[in-house]
Amino acid sequence: MPRYRLTVEYDGSAFHGWQTQAGLPSVQDALERALHAVTGETGTVIGSGRTDTGVHALGQVAHLDTQRDWVPDRLASALNAHLRPQPVVVLQAARAASDFHARFDATRRYYRYRILNRRAPAALEALRTWHRPLPLTVDRMHAAAQILVGRHDFTSFRATECQAKSPIKTLDLIHVHRDGDIVAIDLAARSFLHHQVRNIVGTLVLIGQNLRSVDHMAAVLAARERAAAGQTAPPQGLFLVKVSYAPLGASIVPPVNDGRTILKPSRSV
Amino acid sequence: MPRYRLTVEYDGSAFHGWQTQAGLPSVQDALERALHAVTGETGTVIGSGRTDTGVHALGQVAHLDTQRDWVPDRLASALNAHLRPQPVVVLQAARAASDFHARFDATRRYYRYRILNRRAPAALEALRTWHRPLPLTVDRMHAAAQILVGRHDFTSFRATECQAKSPIKTLDLIHVHRDGDIVAIDLAARSFLHHQVRNIVGTLVLIGQNLRSVDHMAAVLAARERAAAGQTAPPQGLFLVKVSYAPLGASIVPPVNDGRTILKPSRSV
Repeated sequence: MPRYRLTVEYDGSAFHGWQTQAGLPSVQDALERALHAVTGETGTVIGSGRTDTGVHALGQVAHLDTQRDWVPDRLASALNAHLRPQPVVVLQAARAASDFHARFDATRRYYRYRILNRRAPAALEALRTWHRPLPLTVDRMHAAAQILVGRHDFTSFRATECQAKSPIKTLDLIHVHRDGDIVAIDLAARSFLHHQVRNIVGTLVLIGQNLRSVDHMAAVLAARERAAAGQTAPPQGLFLVKVSYAPLGASIVPPVNDGRTILKPSRSV
Repeated sequence: MPRYRLTVEYDGSAFHGWQTQAGLPSVQDALERALHAVTGETGTVIGSGRTDTGVHALGQVAHLDTQRDWVPDRLASALNAHLRPQPVVVLQAARAASDFHARFDATRRYYRYRILNRRAPAALEALRTWHRPLPLTVDRMHAAAQILVGRHDFTSFRATECQAKSPIKTLDLIHVHRDGDIVAIDLAARSFLHHQVRNIVGTLVLIGQNLRSVDHMAAVLAARERAAAGQTAPPQGLFLVKVSYAPLGASIVPPVNDGRTILKPSRSV
């Protein structure tokens, strides 16, 4: 069966996370229902990973199989028509190799955490940021964050319910920067432990507020116990930005030009 | 009575516009209820102007009077505590001259209109943008927009229900630019006609899609009839960004230091 790779954006506020749970709205379930409405098939949509309730995605990646060949743009449009008015959209669909796996083949996940750093609470950004009213010193946060780059035992930042076999992960990149009232924390790694990003952010905020020293981060990491780190930052500030796969050529094959394929992108939604 | 000037942010999706209407939630009513809860007084909160249902504000300005002197930061915090969980917040409060008037003294209003210009509909930005799936050529839109700068009869861009005495307005600035999938249109003028911004945007989109020439804008302006312009762009893409007052010294006076005034900003919310 042809396999397709989807790039998906969603507003996590409307869902109980990515993964299907009986009786609760999930992104995966919304996509599987749309797939059924479009194709009549009961298929599974496999994501690159779960996101928690309230966590957003700008570029989640998933794969699915269908019985028949689709012009990828038409598959995206058809799914989007059935997803409405739920706040989840397929940004892009692409034909994928038959063994492409959205979860196992992912080589890097990119997250962004957004903090609204001003005295007044959020009005427009309430479901898109964590409001921290005390001034944050971004340089201190960035310096402390660099202590985490590389391969480490991240037990201190791991949720107690985390199911990963090992607490050892490699953090490729973490960058803290400010744009007006927004403090953004960008992270990239092959994979993350459950709540790892949110627990790192909770710890960075203590350092940014001068409640802990920059060096405190090294002590937290070395402690290897959850209690050493800060609070779990709330989900609504977290965005799964992008998932990458390498080499690109192995995971995406061009659509078969069977005569029905229109090379000019279809603009119907 | 002491007069205060407020800078207010709100999510227009939650309100039937700025202005109080019996039985419908409005931003003005939310602020007046908060004022009553804080002071026990029944006062009127006067805004720089109305915004329509669904239109947002990053920096609406309003004024109000209270019986007693407030440290401005404490007044803002107290109002915000009572505004919760409604998506309206006081970003700043300042003591104002007793004759300061948020509407009549405004010298410039700044608006931004945001278009999501990509094939896929909005998931995260559905209530913050107008989705236009066809590609927009921003250079054409910007060039056409410059035709509108200056003093003109804007009848073609005026809602039929507009109550302004004259259709003649001076547009100080209009700038069209792109940031990824977002096309933003920034405008500034002393004042605008009802739906003027949204009708300009509806016309610019036709030009950006190549459905009309750049010069078409001059013909629309000269026609002086509403039917000549494009559709009214929907409210959710529109943001009142800022209102300015000049000279600043005339409209804001420093708080009276009566011994109770704490110069270090209070951080409680």
